[in-house]
Amino acid sequence: MAAEIDQQPAVLAATLDALLPSVPVLRALGRDRSHVIFVGRGSSNNAAVYGRYVCELTAGLLGSLASPSIATHYHRRLDLGNALVVGLSQSGRTAEITESIVWARRCGAATVAVTNAEDSPLAAHADVALITHAGDERAVPATKTYTAQLTALAVLGAALAPAGDALLRDLSRVPEEMRRMLSGDDTVDAAAALMVDRGHAVVTSRGYALSTAQELSLKLLETCYVPSLGLSYADLLHGPIALVDRDTAGVVVAPPEGPYRTPLGEIASQMRARGAAVVGIGGDDAFARCCDVALARTTLPEAIAPLVLVGPGQQLTEALARRMGLDPDVPRGLSKITQTEPARPVQREQFMGGGRNSW
Amino acid sequence: MAAEIDQQPAVLAATLDALLPSVPVLRALGRDRSHVIFVGRGSSNNAAVYGRYVCELTAGLLGSLASPSIATHYHRRLDLGNALVVGLSQSGRTAEITESIVWARRCGAATVAVTNAEDSPLAAHADVALITHAGDERAVPATKTYTAQLTALAVLGAALAPAGDALLRDLSRVPEEMRRMLSGDDTVDAAAALMVDRGHAVVTSRGYALSTAQELSLKLLETCYVPSLGLSYADLLHGPIALVDRDTAGVVVAPPEGPYRTPLGEIASQMRARGAAVVGIGGDDAFARCCDVALARTTLPEAIAPLVLVGPGQQLTEALARRMGLDPDVPRGLSKITQTEPARPVQREQFMGGGRNSW
Repeated sequence: MAAEIDQQPAVLAATLDALLPSVPVLRALGRDRSHVIFVGRGSSNNAAVYGRYVCELTAGLLGSLASPSIATHYHRRLDLGNALVVGLSQSGRTAEITESIVWARRCGAATVAVTNAEDSPLAAHADVALITHAGDERAVPATKTYTAQLTALAVLGAALAPAGDALLRDLSRVPEEMRRMLSGDDTVDAAAALMVDRGHAVVTSRGYALSTAQELSLKLLETCYVPSLGLSYADLLHGPIALVDRDTAGVVVAPPEGPYRTPLGEIASQMRARGAAVVGIGGDDAFARCCDVALARTTLPEAIAPLVLVGPGQQLTEALARRMGLDPDVPRGLSKITQTEPARPVQREQFMGGGRNSW
Repeated sequence: MAAEIDQQPAVLAATLDALLPSVPVLRALGRDRSHVIFVGRGSSNNAAVYGRYVCELTAGLLGSLASPSIATHYHRRLDLGNALVVGLSQSGRTAEITESIVWARRCGAATVAVTNAEDSPLAAHADVALITHAGDERAVPATKTYTAQLTALAVLGAALAPAGDALLRDLSRVPEEMRRMLSGDDTVDAAAALMVDRGHAVVTSRGYALSTAQELSLKLLETCYVPSLGLSYADLLHGPIALVDRDTAGVVVAPPEGPYRTPLGEIASQMRARGAAVVGIGGDDAFARCCDVALARTTLPEAIAPLVLVGPGQQLTEALARRMGLDPDVPRGLSKITQTEPARPVQREQFMGGGRNSW
């Protein structure tokens, strides 16, 4: 896991190089589509949360997350003639995601696959396949494949936006910025030490970076077996804040700018006032002063900051697992092959037909 | 909280009586709208999860959950000319929900309010207001206002469905069925006893009843301060299953029929095999045998079963809180007035203008 976290600057650079040429095709595919629907599970779903904000805020297109069961278990036909449907699976072999893409095409949608496996059913069934260049990911917790997915979704958002060129230019800064974000080892260890004796975690953010909070919460759950909530601060304040006390390890992820940087500092202070230990990621000086330990921050624009904000959090999860005597590479009960049904083996149907464009 | 749980049969009957006459107006409002978008927080968001399944599966219309921040913090205009936007707030005074409805109308949407307060900003700003008849809810954890919201959403779904009359007929069975579901006190106490010493909870279901799992998880969080995950079993298996062990209190909610009844029994067995104590709600005989304690079940169709499946779970939460020495009516740090921003007081803007139809 640690090695794969460190590979991210190179992975993001390779993925950008591979996907930038797809912009004109994506632009053509999205023409006359007013709605972008994302389908994913686990880390891929967290990437989809980011994709949804990019589509709505950057491209001005309605975005949403699909319920795969509509396709896979209820077999309900919907009119998707106005929709672009994006299926995400690092392996490209999660059966329900491929089934959802096949269903979406039948319902009239244009389809995009985001996957790390060019030779996969998911890539074969979408109109356009965005192939991430993360290489083989051996640790069960996704790290480099997740940020590579975010990169693909940022490219998609830029392609669909009327003025996407500025975003594309900013994306070129991402690999070097990730390298910088990952170089703060001392504070990561201090943060892990602060969290290790707390019984549960609450990870929060809002807006574009909500995806980061949800992904880090999932990492803590599956790698450290820490009961963890990953949620927007609006949802936190609405009820679950009652849980926050001296047994809480808080992680607050703040963008470098935008409407949420300042409120997220206030949230960090509020959690500390209830007894929580709070680790901050991102933000500015004022935000850092609201936290017990502040990890790296970035100067990337809010719209693409999530591509690098997750990095120090991945390191934190890995360090916390080791401090707890756990093996972060192989969590109990999980395997790299995704399983979303209980008893039956995951179906590995061999679909016929092929995608028309692959990157 | 206990008294309000018990009021639900009467509340649901009164809400049905009040809202059934709105069907023709809702049908007219939804004409030519291909997409239904729900906006809510907390229990209202969990109700929205149900509304989304009803819209997609019963009415065949694309459904999704909004991110309120697009409206309230980023002020991003989207084209909602094909959309019906449904705002949910029991008080009708959650500023961000009203702001979202005002934004949606400006973006071209038709709008519906679902609220327990006829004289509220939310009701005033929507094209149609569906007023639930839950009476005054004094306990902080929502119970009767939540099931009244589900009732309103089932009526909306039936109005939008080409063949909604069958659903409307089935809805008439709901009040009596809720009365029956709430009469199983002995098993509720046994279930609470089983859960009391576990460190965290995992509440799962899938499909229509996913909303029930999410709502019961929220109840456990805010009433019992138990770290709790409420998620679909597909998401559970995808990663967080690693958390499930002898410290886990599991709650599995199964519909009476449909594609998920049998897999949910398998999930219950899988959680028990990892050491969890598992309480089942709903399902059939085979499902009950997979659980340590099985609470009430229902014969309502899957599409409206969530209106009553939550009842025994509400009782379970209340019983667990009392067993833990907590006051379920007044959780620490929460108030009945919804707060979704940290420092500033919740805005209570007096919007001008009025809704055209109220029930």
